Amino acid sequence: MSFSAVDLIGLKRDRKTLPDDGIRWLIDAYTRDEVADYQMSAMAMAIVLNGLDRRELATWTEAMLTSGDVLDFSDIPIPKIDKHSTGGVGDKISIPLAPLVAACGIAVPMMSGRGLGHTGGTLDKLESIEGFTTRINKERFRSILEAHNLVLAGQSETMVPADRKLYGLRDASGTVPSIPLISSSIMSKKLSEGLDGLLLDVKTGSGAFMQTLEDARELANTMVGIGEASGVDTVALITSMDQPLGNEVGNANEIAESIAVLNGSGPADVTELTLEFGTVMLELGGIPDAKPQLEEAIANGSALEKLKDVARAHGGDPSMIDDPSLLPVAPHVESITAPASGYVTKCDALAVGLSTTRLGAGRERQEDEINHGVGVTIHAKLGDEVRAGDPLATVRFSDPVRWESQRDHLASAWEIGDQRPSLSPLIIERIDSPGD
Amino acid sequence: MSFSAVDLIGLKRDRKTLPDDGIRWLIDAYTRDEVADYQMSAMAMAIVLNGLDRRELATWTEAMLTSGDVLDFSDIPIPKIDKHSTGGVGDKISIPLAPLVAACGIAVPMMSGRGLGHTGGTLDKLESIEGFTTRINKERFRSILEAHNLVLAGQSETMVPADRKLYGLRDASGTVPSIPLISSSIMSKKLSEGLDGLLLDVKTGSGAFMQTLEDARELANTMVGIGEASGVDTVALITSMDQPLGNEVGNANEIAESIAVLNGSGPADVTELTLEFGTVMLELGGIPDAKPQLEEAIANGSALEKLKDVARAHGGDPSMIDDPSLLPVAPHVESITAPASGYVTKCDALAVGLSTTRLGAGRERQEDEINHGVGVTIHAKLGDEVRAGDPLATVRFSDPVRWESQRDHLASAWEIGDQRPSLSPLIIERIDSPGD
Repeated sequence: MSFSAVDLIGLKRDRKTLPDDGIRWLIDAYTRDEVADYQMSAMAMAIVLNGLDRRELATWTEAMLTSGDVLDFSDIPIPKIDKHSTGGVGDKISIPLAPLVAACGIAVPMMSGRGLGHTGGTLDKLESIEGFTTRINKERFRSILEAHNLVLAGQSETMVPADRKLYGLRDASGTVPSIPLISSSIMSKKLSEGLDGLLLDVKTGSGAFMQTLEDARELANTMVGIGEASGVDTVALITSMDQPLGNEVGNANEIAESIAVLNGSGPADVTELTLEFGTVMLELGGIPDAKPQLEEAIANGSALEKLKDVARAHGGDPSMIDDPSLLPVAPHVESITAPASGYVTKCDALAVGLSTTRLGAGRERQEDEINHGVGVTIHAKLGDEVRAGDPLATVRFSDPVRWESQRDHLASAWEIGDQRPSLSPLIIERIDSPGD
Repeated sequence: MSFSAVDLIGLKRDRKTLPDDGIRWLIDAYTRDEVADYQMSAMAMAIVLNGLDRRELATWTEAMLTSGDVLDFSDIPIPKIDKHSTGGVGDKISIPLAPLVAACGIAVPMMSGRGLGHTGGTLDKLESIEGFTTRINKERFRSILEAHNLVLAGQSETMVPADRKLYGLRDASGTVPSIPLISSSIMSKKLSEGLDGLLLDVKTGSGAFMQTLEDARELANTMVGIGEASGVDTVALITSMDQPLGNEVGNANEIAESIAVLNGSGPADVTELTLEFGTVMLELGGIPDAKPQLEEAIANGSALEKLKDVARAHGGDPSMIDDPSLLPVAPHVESITAPASGYVTKCDALAVGLSTTRLGAGRERQEDEINHGVGVTIHAKLGDEVRAGDPLATVRFSDPVRWESQRDHLASAWEIGDQRPSLSPLIIERIDSPGD
């Protein structure tokens, strides 16, 4: 069946409902370059402003999903569960979580992304481990998953090509901020992994893409709705991203902190989220109340062993996991110190994330190289008491000129006050069904 | 000054005001292919849905206008006044009007367009006259205007290039129906002609692009506002386009009817609008209450003489104006007859316009050739009494296959009823200032 792109754009422009077969035609024709970028960007703007209803969105996501290869692990007899985060600063949860859950008998076919804006990416972090390659083909993806219940890779070019095209177009045409478009982009990628269940970590706060709780809640509801419509059990947790997660920001820094969590010596917030998320993932896999089992997998070393096994399977050097001091480290060290005595009343995730990115831990342009040894170690977080001159953070960097340009910006992340601030909970809300 | 296209699109998407220098940068960068089509179409959709305020619109129009050559006739000592119509069926008013007004001492530097959709175009009609060329350069445009107070041409490639690009993009990206974008497209073209005054004929009804009076009024107000902001005296008349204007539809047919008007033997509606529009144009040129003067220019033949002079100046054969039977005529003739006796209660402009276009009087694709001899002569209009079997229209065409496919559609334009319908006035409203 053939449609006219102009007619379909006109429907959405005029707040009419797009027909299912029209949506399927549009996404397919766009993937084949038959619908032009200038047509798709006009459609995207009409969607930004007029939205998609639940059915349009389910069809749109399914059309994106089936624009390329869809994985099928139905022959693997254990539950396939993954987790996705909308992205934050210091958010390395996937790295301790995935091996922990896999060590407890769940298969985790995890496809992750690279750093975006001020947030880091799981693939970039994993590549801090010498030799670790996240670019693998379908066959290798399956064989690692079968051998270890876990695989940690990027998405191949043949999966969700419609999303790859549309994602770039939206970025260049001012059509990013749309909950339906964000949801369908995330969910089409995740649903192509052949999952039985999916945990969504939707972050809210100054360091998140969804800065308000209302927006985070709408995004979570929308994505859970798409998951349900596709028959994949989906739970969303809305979590706080006002300050960085844990004490380490930067690629090798975050690998080291992830290893610490699996050694039982991680910071409280990262350890708590890892265990809570793991509990939900095991629940999605049919294993309720599994927190003790997860704690045991940390205590007996099986989770850390799983990370080493998988690193080795991806070509990575497991000795770096045994001895994190072998991870890359940038040559220069400087400190940010407290300008006054009192309580930390602000430790701004966005400012820390931006400065760390600009020091070389992330990309300002797509073609930039990551410097895996650049990172910030945070010594004082919200509510901590400090004295004037105490170190707030230790910064490792390679380029003193960049450091000079970032020092004040990074320092501005902290504010010190007289009153101990009240702290918001790490997990704000759980969403099991899309609501209305 | 340089801007980011994505940031400007984001402003309009978020209902913020575009800065003046941002608008100027955008239009200029788009004209130079520095802003991509997919960015401009996203911006156009944001404007379709979120609008432009009066100041943004004035700046947008001025930026379009100055994207290319702007004519300057300030050295010509008489007022330069033009007229624009939003387009209708059988709307040949420009053809008798321009020479009539020029014969009364006003300079008319008229740039017209080609047929669009179901409506005809002045340039296509004029080219029914053997040899008449409407593609002339700036120097020739000026010399004909200086010699005759009148020139009838198309817009050159060097004028308003931003509009030429944006017009095509909007057509292909579903971003046509926007009063700010329509207004700025029309007004940037007209204001590039170096005018002192402008009459806008905004048509409303089934055969018009603005089908409702509200939309026509908003378009008229918006265009008058742009004219005022540019210092050009602008008056809009909202006129009825429920049935075709006059009795002739098609290119040579409409030239013949225009000649009849200048011979004093035109149909009442075309003659009335020509005189009323002429009166407003002379008023804009500083000559109030000039209807008697216009009637005299018809009576003494000076208006017809002006048309012949100008046709000759454009390379056209003036003998066709002396003897309209020399105009091209298609070989086949058929009639549409009344299916019953009664009053004509519908004579639908859209149906007549579409069928005439499809018979070859217009283009279905940009590359189609016009058949100047194809046309419809209407014998029964709204309110006329007919008997069953009376001819409603005489149709001239070249392609019997097309005629078979159009016969029923054309016949469906008429409805016959028992009650004489009430007729709406030709001129519905006059708008002198943009209001609020």
